[in-house]
Amino acid sequence: MIAGVDHIGIAVHSIEEARRFWEDLGLEVAAIEEVAEEGVRVAMLPVGGTRIELLEPTREDSAIARFLATRGPGIHHVCMASDDVDDDDASLRAKGHRLIRDAPSPGAGGSRVQFIHPKSAGGVLVELAEHAAGGHAP
Amino acid sequence: MIAGVDHIGIAVHSIEEARRFWEDLGLEVAAIEEVAEEGVRVAMLPVGGTRIELLEPTREDSAIARFLATRGPGIHHVCMASDDVDDDDASLRAKGHRLIRDAPSPGAGGSRVQFIHPKSAGGVLVELAEHAAGGHAP
Repeated sequence: MIAGVDHIGIAVHSIEEARRFWEDLGLEVAAIEEVAEEGVRVAMLPVGGTRIELLEPTREDSAIARFLATRGPGIHHVCMASDDVDDDDASLRAKGHRLIRDAPSPGAGGSRVQFIHPKSAGGVLVELAEHAAGGHAP
Repeated sequence: MIAGVDHIGIAVHSIEEARRFWEDLGLEVAAIEEVAEEGVRVAMLPVGGTRIELLEPTREDSAIARFLATRGPGIHHVCMASDDVDDDDASLRAKGHRLIRDAPSPGAGGSRVQFIHPKSAGGVLVELAEHAAGGHAP
């Protein structure tokens, strides 16, 4: 089941440049983490139970670098908080939706994640994330 | 001040087709409204304190129709809930950001809204909305 919007992922060339706008709006960067296997640095800005994530590529062959090269900076994906990502995965498959990974797999901070193909989600890349405690990340 | 994410606006060719994916994920359409002056029908799907909004054009010269023609369906904007949109407007202008309207103006359901130009917000069209009661829309 989906409990809310976990985060909105925004592709940026530079966290240092992009964070300024969000900080001018009053948000704060709570953490910056590198996710080496995705080739990305992530700045997390919590806001009202969800968060903005700024995604800066660290390698030219990363998904975020390819997105930036094709579309330029902007919203890359929306991540929904799931309380049972295996159940949501099975339920979406049964309804004929196209999932990107063969099964939910480890994501950042002990989470388990799956992605729904934009062709099944009206052009939107939708991530599902179940956090270790079963809840919503800070 | 920004209290949270008010909604995520997604451009769709057809609400009737696009709602199916979100309903399969467990969300429900709480309301569908036509905003004649914007040339758009809006389906609202509340989820965990924010909502997904599916935006279907009703006129070929609407902003959503132009977005669909250029980029195809996908995320069109993110709307942040403001508790004082005049104050946020003034504060962003003072910091050199580019706002789209001369001043905050009436939006749906008694709200007052402003838009930040994507050039000031890292390629993202950001809306600010202050609701009549000063809070967050359902």
